[in-house]
Amino acid sequence: MPRTEPRVELLAHTPEPLSLLYAAFRQCYHAGFVADMWPRLLSGEIEREKQGAFIASILESGHSSPIEHVSFTFAIEGVSRALTHQLVRHRIASFSQQSQRYVDGSHFDYVMPPAIARNAAAKARFEQFMEDVGSAYRDIKALLEQDGRTGSRANEDARFVLPQAAASKIVVTMNCRALVHFFEERCCMRAQWEIRAVADVMLGLCREVLPELFAHAGAKCERLGYCPEGERFTCGRYPLRQSMP
Amino acid sequence: MPRTEPRVELLAHTPEPLSLLYAAFRQCYHAGFVADMWPRLLSGEIEREKQGAFIASILESGHSSPIEHVSFTFAIEGVSRALTHQLVRHRIASFSQQSQRYVDGSHFDYVMPPAIARNAAAKARFEQFMEDVGSAYRDIKALLEQDGRTGSRANEDARFVLPQAAASKIVVTMNCRALVHFFEERCCMRAQWEIRAVADVMLGLCREVLPELFAHAGAKCERLGYCPEGERFTCGRYPLRQSMP
Amino acid sequence: MPRTEPRVELLAHTPEPLSLLYAAFRQCYHAGFVADMWPRLLSGEIEREKQGAFIASILESGHSSPIEHVSFTFAIEGVSRALTHQLVRHRIASFSQQSQRYVDGSHFDYVMPPAIARNAAAKARFEQFMEDVGSAYRDIKALLEQDGRTGSRANEDARFVLPQAAASKIVVTMNCRALVHFFEERCCMRAQWEIRAVADVMLGLCREVLPELFAHAGAKCERLGYCPEGERFTCGRYPLRQSMP
Amino acid sequence: MPRTEPRVELLAHTPEPLSLLYAAFRQCYHAGFVADMWPRLLSGEIEREKQGAFIASILESGHSSPIEHVSFTFAIEGVSRALTHQLVRHRIASFSQQSQRYVDGSHFDYVMPPAIARNAAAKARFEQFMEDVGSAYRDIKALLEQDGRTGSRANEDARFVLPQAAASKIVVTMNCRALVHFFEERCCMRAQWEIRAVADVMLGLCREVLPELFAHAGAKCERLGYCPEGERFTCGRYPLRQSMP
Repeated sequence: MPRTEPRVELLAHTPEPLSLLYAAFRQCYHAGFVADMWPRLLSGEIEREKQGAFIASILESGHSSPIEHVSFTFAIEGVSRALTHQLVRHRIASFSQQSQRYVDGSHFDYVMPPAIARNAAAKARFEQFMEDVGSAYRDIKALLEQDGRTGSRANEDARFVLPQAAASKIVVTMNCRALVHFFEERCCMRAQWEIRAVADVMLGLCREVLPELFAHAGAKCERLGYCPEGERFTCGRYPLRQSMP
Repeated sequence: MPRTEPRVELLAHTPEPLSLLYAAFRQCYHAGFVADMWPRLLSGEIEREKQGAFIASILESGHSSPIEHVSFTFAIEGVSRALTHQLVRHRIASFSQQSQRYVDGSHFDYVMPPAIARNAAAKARFEQFMEDVGSAYRDIKALLEQDGRTGSRANEDARFVLPQAAASKIVVTMNCRALVHFFEERCCMRAQWEIRAVADVMLGLCREVLPELFAHAGAKCERLGYCPEGERFTCGRYPLRQSMP
Repeated sequence: MPRTEPRVELLAHTPEPLSLLYAAFRQCYHAGFVADMWPRLLSGEIEREKQGAFIASILESGHSSPIEHVSFTFAIEGVSRALTHQLVRHRIASFSQQSQRYVDGSHFDYVMPPAIARNAAAKARFEQFMEDVGSAYRDIKALLEQDGRTGSRANEDARFVLPQAAASKIVVTMNCRALVHFFEERCCMRAQWEIRAVADVMLGLCREVLPELFAHAGAKCERLGYCPEGERFTCGRYPLRQSMP
Repeated sequence: MPRTEPRVELLAHTPEPLSLLYAAFRQCYHAGFVADMWPRLLSGEIEREKQGAFIASILESGHSSPIEHVSFTFAIEGVSRALTHQLVRHRIASFSQQSQRYVDGSHFDYVMPPAIARNAAAKARFEQFMEDVGSAYRDIKALLEQDGRTGSRANEDARFVLPQAAASKIVVTMNCRALVHFFEERCCMRAQWEIRAVADVMLGLCREVLPELFAHAGAKCERLGYCPEGERFTCGRYPLRQSMP
């Protein structure tokens, strides 16, 4: 039962994302047809800097739906089922996840929480336990096969012993508006450590492609300048609203 | 580690659901204002039978969005995390699920697949393993607490050992259109046994409240009169489309 | 062509909305099953005040998805097609709107903007124009009927002359989370006057049913204590963020 | 007031759409990580034909959510507000539409229904009426300006006279699953002529980019081999289900 680490790859994103956002925002306020200015956007005749400034000024005024026109698709592996159960709660997104029914789990990978990895006794207990899970899975699968349940029909029941730590693989597509919201929630120190780590990598990849939009994305405090999470939950990096000068 | 069974309770539904669907459908085709006919719908001056027949005739013609106006809210317990991970993939729905971070898992309930329960050796192996998981959870939680991680901070890491079989509790709201789709997918014999059993109970509860809509809901074949799942996946209850007379 | 005014009726809402929100929030943090405490919520054994306080404290901490479990259904008439085109842009909602295809528009109602009503010359010009539209609709419909296009086939083309002012009727269902967002956007002084007036009435109806949630709903500034719309768009009721003390 | 015609331009789509769909579908059933096979997909080492066949076989079995990972963005002009009001009812989509508040309508373009254009008397009446609308708009706007309401504040009220025929411009993004559904509804002969014409052009553009998915998309009958619209609404191109041999 090998331990694994998260890996996040950007498979695809809408091409020419800055120009597409600019075109969508402009169409709302422009008498002409943005398809006619599209070549001048791609050629840089209308400068990228100007495009970014226009987008920033409209976003500042509270109009954000046009950023939905650009999407990013990530392939993610080495993350726990605990993480994917949280991840798929984001409903404005598309997911294709590795099935525990069609893929055998006899030798599953697992994710170890850092706090467990730092405690030698806990680490040993956790590692031994993961071996025990593998044995239980294989034993139960073999017993089901003796009853004539094979392949996916055996996997789907044997997997009931697999832990939340069991690693999964998933393809995720989100548009920029959903991503901005996802980063607000999941880059916050209140988020669980595993999904925060994955969100941070996703944010880095988005920033490389579209810095004009994602440079200041992240936990809500980054944009607000204060922490909205309240006294009980704040991490202390930013002041609470009530205690602002 | 006690074994548990699913329990599905209907907490609430939109009141006067038949009349509300009727009003919504009528508003599309009616010159008047349905708020003005609303008292006559509730009083039965416009008969329930007539309301149901009108809805059926419009649905038959392919216009189904008005059934979204009525929602059902269920509370569900005794279902595995394997089930809830599938359940929350339905994105046109609202979910509030018991947190493994805020609720201690030292003595978690679990769900046992029927095929395992029917095989004495598999059942014994599964039961023993669930006890082992409880020990591992408690051991690791205790070790984390020695490091100063307590409460939800200990739970959120210890839970990595909890199995897919671990029982969860969840409140679910879906509108009728989402429910009809949910039943099409999950009452099908291709669906996994656990979510099919829960979907069947939900469907029964919906039928009691709104038989005019849900009497013929269920797996796609119930409505189509044939199985659309293809030769490889059909359960055989209905003929495949290509082999229809 | 008679002038009309908006009318908003609350047709239905999820019953026992406060207790349902409480149950949904509690299930996230509670070891027990909320269906078991449900009778005690309805009986008032767990006091409404306590239920409201619990919900407020969790909302304050940033966890808002459970408010989705409660929905409100409104019937609205006397609003312009300009308004309904804006309204149906809210995608987390269900709509059933009167069809200009199936309902004849020969004697359509219309909405007059207050700024036009206040200017005698503009008012007279507007009123006369609405009569002209009616004539054009009836003339064109009659000419199409001579070509054998009758009923909905004549309406669907004749309606191309109907103005944005033409009144429509629509049934709308939104859950509380969508409503809170809708009020943030549409109760703001930046919103167009017509949809703001309708949103204000809807908010009043929600407040009567569920004051614990809606007492402080409204434009974003009501909750934030400052205006986030920026110098160019602010109405001045609240200070801008940058100019807060 | 010039008459206009629809124009649909494909601004962007997710790059390498076939390979991305293949990767997403494969990840569900594959033990490995699709990011590792991604270069072999792009290079053609895994042949496009094989990719298409795999996708077709999974779609056939009823698993369609992975097609959501690919999106198309269109810019559309020369379509009526009647059309855009229908278009934005598709909620799993993103829209950025030209504002009648920020863009002056003194010399608006308009769309003429073909049945009107074919009838000389109706055509003349319609054309004259559009000139009358322009006059009314300019008169009312001038009167509002005398009251000190200028720019967008004058436009937003003057536009109440603009007809459903008034042309709009809109940027639309939909993923493939939403597109397939859109084509099922809107390429059907029951759909209104204007949105059907636009949907047909969109479908043609999608087919050029991704024939493996869109070759057989279109009205529901194209896939089913029969008409599901019922006796009252069928266009007769395909037999009704009940009358199939």
